[in-house]
Amino acid sequence: MADLKKSGEFGLIDRFRSHLKFHSPRTKIGIGDDCAVYTGKTGKYQIISTDALIENIHFKLSTTEPHLLGRKALSVNISDIAAMGGTPCLALVTLGIPKTLPKKFLDSLYRGINEVCLEHKIEIVGGDTSASPSHLFINITIVGEAGKKQLITRSGARPGDKIFVTGTPGQSALGLKLLSSSRKKWKGNIKFKKKMIQAHKNPVPRLVESQKLVNSSARITSMIDISDGLAQDLLHICEASKVGAVIREEWLPKSMELKNLTSLNNLKIMDYILAGGEDYELLFTLKSEDVRKIIDQFKNAKTPVTQIGEVTTHPQKVILLNEDGKSQSLKKLSGFDHFRTKKK
Amino acid sequence: MADLKKSGEFGLIDRFRSHLKFHSPRTKIGIGDDCAVYTGKTGKYQIISTDALIENIHFKLSTTEPHLLGRKALSVNISDIAAMGGTPCLALVTLGIPKTLPKKFLDSLYRGINEVCLEHKIEIVGGDTSASPSHLFINITIVGEAGKKQLITRSGARPGDKIFVTGTPGQSALGLKLLSSSRKKWKGNIKFKKKMIQAHKNPVPRLVESQKLVNSSARITSMIDISDGLAQDLLHICEASKVGAVIREEWLPKSMELKNLTSLNNLKIMDYILAGGEDYELLFTLKSEDVRKIIDQFKNAKTPVTQIGEVTTHPQKVILLNEDGKSQSLKKLSGFDHFRTKKK
Repeated sequence: MADLKKSGEFGLIDRFRSHLKFHSPRTKIGIGDDCAVYTGKTGKYQIISTDALIENIHFKLSTTEPHLLGRKALSVNISDIAAMGGTPCLALVTLGIPKTLPKKFLDSLYRGINEVCLEHKIEIVGGDTSASPSHLFINITIVGEAGKKQLITRSGARPGDKIFVTGTPGQSALGLKLLSSSRKKWKGNIKFKKKMIQAHKNPVPRLVESQKLVNSSARITSMIDISDGLAQDLLHICEASKVGAVIREEWLPKSMELKNLTSLNNLKIMDYILAGGEDYELLFTLKSEDVRKIIDQFKNAKTPVTQIGEVTTHPQKVILLNEDGKSQSLKKLSGFDHFRTKKK
Repeated sequence: MADLKKSGEFGLIDRFRSHLKFHSPRTKIGIGDDCAVYTGKTGKYQIISTDALIENIHFKLSTTEPHLLGRKALSVNISDIAAMGGTPCLALVTLGIPKTLPKKFLDSLYRGINEVCLEHKIEIVGGDTSASPSHLFINITIVGEAGKKQLITRSGARPGDKIFVTGTPGQSALGLKLLSSSRKKWKGNIKFKKKMIQAHKNPVPRLVESQKLVNSSARITSMIDISDGLAQDLLHICEASKVGAVIREEWLPKSMELKNLTSLNNLKIMDYILAGGEDYELLFTLKSEDVRKIIDQFKNAKTPVTQIGEVTTHPQKVILLNEDGKSQSLKKLSGFDHFRTKKK
């Protein structure tokens, strides 16, 4: 399909622009000049992050719906904003596009991006569009802001703080495993399998939950989103906060579907919960006196929060207490690392 | 070289970090959390832009020194900030790295980035580092700011305004041509050839000149940096400002080296000056009453500014007046477009 060649870069930019429906009153100049121009809110911090999705590293074209890829590319960036207790405002989208990619793939990709923009009031204010020699490359940069008292970093966890997680981690990793092997060989309910794949393909950034946390009177001391895996990301908090952590296997939230599918297919559920990346759940610590507040606030919430352990003084050591009373250091269990293993 | 595999993503990030020496007092949190956090200056606009360099589209590994590639990757982004009359503050660097790329290549790349950071007081506050299946991708996002009265867009040109350009465009395109063919076949002084190649590999963003322009009492009405070629970028100004332009062939600044090399090798100098991209010179318009001011201000400047034409009422039409009195519409001469032609 040579239609990308026909329209050229400027044609593509106009095409993308036509998909984008959210415009922020804070944006003075959006797409179309050398830079985008906007105003920052007085008294707030500006926060910024960037995340790339690369073909054959983060996704395969053969198992990817472009619309969901567009959603995910933006959602994983929003998740970084949520992890700081911020709200997203604007984003820039860089695409490296193989010449053989059909235009309708790009239209669907932008439809997905636009959906997430509308859901979270984010304006795409710029980007870069180039050919790519072989693989599709998507890099999004997101800008948000956070109230100076609401900013939550990785470095505030203190011994005695309690560790919580939103949702039920591990599903995305099982979804990825399902996608990268023949699904027919898998035992279990097809709806369950679809739910795992959905968790991988269309993760929901926990912005609502993050805002609930920062607006609560409970003192959240640190937070991170689980992109590398629960154990790895807890280690990141421990490293930044110069503390350790103990988590209890029996306390870890296990979704019914994950329990069912790992059990039926002889997989270790802990591998998925602890080391499975790309969950984009929030992992956070809070003052032990405030545990009740948070539990009450999330009592009827769509996304549950679960206490999974406690911060300790042992520097940078994460201990897993098993159900049979044994303890195991998670120091060497690491989240996914693109340079060590091939993701797909 | 499998050493990238050994160190993994987090090892690489630490390694990059060790190269970066500039830290801004405005940055509250740099590399190492989910987002970078900074404060915007009250009363100023925030400006943001992003630009990617992709292997085999924008550069070839075989003809690229990694140190200069690092410099260029950041410089082309700074150029976008300069084109708005802004100053750069911070940047994020995303790399998609083929596993076969030697670590020392990345060290040199970061050395180049760090040099430009120090030259322009830019802090690298974050980024993303991932494996790439085959080609090197570099995507930099830059954030800067501009005084509300100093911001210059593409859309302010009015009929009667005079058109100026900094430096001597066309050299980068000739440098690229030299790089992509056997240099031995080329007639001419080796120093001249090196200068052309240098213009391509190590473009200097015109930040000093931009600041001089916005701080001048002369009324600059529009500005753009020449990344797509002088004719194409002038068309961008005309399109955004809903005006036309006439430029005079005899007024276009021609570097002695470009004149010499195009003449010796039977190349049309106008092809390089008008359609050659990646010059990163500034193209701007100003009120005709202020021409004298600008000429006086740049009298002893290292980088000259040259008047090349005038803004007209003809919407979106750029006319070239040749030395022999003939006129030619440049509407169809377009800058380089990655989707239409292969750059290298």
